[in-house]
Amino acid sequence: MSADALLTHEAFEAAIRAVGAERYHDKHVFHQMLHGGKLNRGQVQAWALNRYCYQEAVPRKDAALMARTDDRDLRREWIHRIHDHDGLGEESGGIERWLILTDGLGLDRALVMSKKAALPATRFAVEAYVRFVAEQPLVVAVASSLTELFAPKIHKERIAGMLENYDFIGEDVMAYFRRRLSQAPRDADFALDYIKRHAHTRVEQEACVDAVRFKCNVLWAQLDALYIAYVQGMVPPGAFVPA
Amino acid sequence: MSADALLTHEAFEAAIRAVGAERYHDKHVFHQMLHGGKLNRGQVQAWALNRYCYQEAVPRKDAALMARTDDRDLRREWIHRIHDHDGLGEESGGIERWLILTDGLGLDRALVMSKKAALPATRFAVEAYVRFVAEQPLVVAVASSLTELFAPKIHKERIAGMLENYDFIGEDVMAYFRRRLSQAPRDADFALDYIKRHAHTRVEQEACVDAVRFKCNVLWAQLDALYIAYVQGMVPPGAFVPA
Repeated sequence: MSADALLTHEAFEAAIRAVGAERYHDKHVFHQMLHGGKLNRGQVQAWALNRYCYQEAVPRKDAALMARTDDRDLRREWIHRIHDHDGLGEESGGIERWLILTDGLGLDRALVMSKKAALPATRFAVEAYVRFVAEQPLVVAVASSLTELFAPKIHKERIAGMLENYDFIGEDVMAYFRRRLSQAPRDADFALDYIKRHAHTRVEQEACVDAVRFKCNVLWAQLDALYIAYVQGMVPPGAFVPA
Repeated sequence: MSADALLTHEAFEAAIRAVGAERYHDKHVFHQMLHGGKLNRGQVQAWALNRYCYQEAVPRKDAALMARTDDRDLRREWIHRIHDHDGLGEESGGIERWLILTDGLGLDRALVMSKKAALPATRFAVEAYVRFVAEQPLVVAVASSLTELFAPKIHKERIAGMLENYDFIGEDVMAYFRRRLSQAPRDADFALDYIKRHAHTRVEQEACVDAVRFKCNVLWAQLDALYIAYVQGMVPPGAFVPA
């Protein structure tokens, strides 16, 4: 095959899945420590407090994507991601479920929601994701969501591992991940189908694969920052210090 | 003094200098290792390759600031920062001097300039700085440059420490820092005077102090990322690996 030939849908999907196999954050040592019961309560608090910044950014990046398209069908599909995180009507949504997790870990809700005690590197990474979705070509922005292809495995491991290994983690606070087990595959299937239909050149396909790499970097950098601060013990000035 | 009273110029400047004393990146262990001769050549390469991303972003953030103001005097003053980094006419500028440093370290110029081997966390931090300057109120954007108040000390230490401690570092490759010894104080004096004249409320003054905190976080996060990758040895997938 020429280097410039359009990939078949199968090869395109395989290239995207290969990125996950190579660099999704389930390979990060902090992730393995989290699930394996190797962290203390303060370290799990730091993880949940920082990860809140990511959760909080998700509906903003989804709104940024919707703001860019005149494809009403795409908006009608994509909006349910905002519903999933912000909630709609009776449903309180994923961010609220995340706050139930941070409540359960004994963190002050106002502190968590202020994002002020989060690591600067967390916020830089998260906001880079929001900007990416706002600025890249639409099909590439859609592709950046595709780490969800790899999420159900990590969420299953997380639910089992955290319930088993931490006496301060109960079933109620794991509700966020349990819900994502059904939400993420639906979203990933849609986005994967979308990019197959809308990446019309090899260059666009490669940009979509790069978008998944970029997104893996966003997730990886967050775990690197947690590791250096809360495993290595080098907490940056002004960031959360466990009691 | 009431919490809401305008700070005197002296107290405002003192508050900004206190941020540097607390969290400028000369307190970071990686910085101390760099100057103290504790790094090997590969680690110094990684520092220079990553720091290139910061240097490269500086004229973009200065252009972003100029793009926002109808104050011609401010633009006429600020433009010399772009000259300093990009060069003008016969003068090749600071980014070129940085590339002489990376050349001297044996790094491939195309690799450095591509930024592709830099740590994702470096690029997230650097781009957060560019966005900050593009999006925050103008006086706050100006204030974010004020880490230059603290730079001459670090540059003097760097020139002396690196020349003394590394046999692969010569006088020629230190030209970037030597030039900054005169450039940074001029820039810092202007910016400090500007924010004193243009921060008209206590809230604006506090936002300026926070801008210096933010900027320190941008610098600190870059050293954290270098530390975890090249001292701790946890290089993220796809990033530069020393030979």
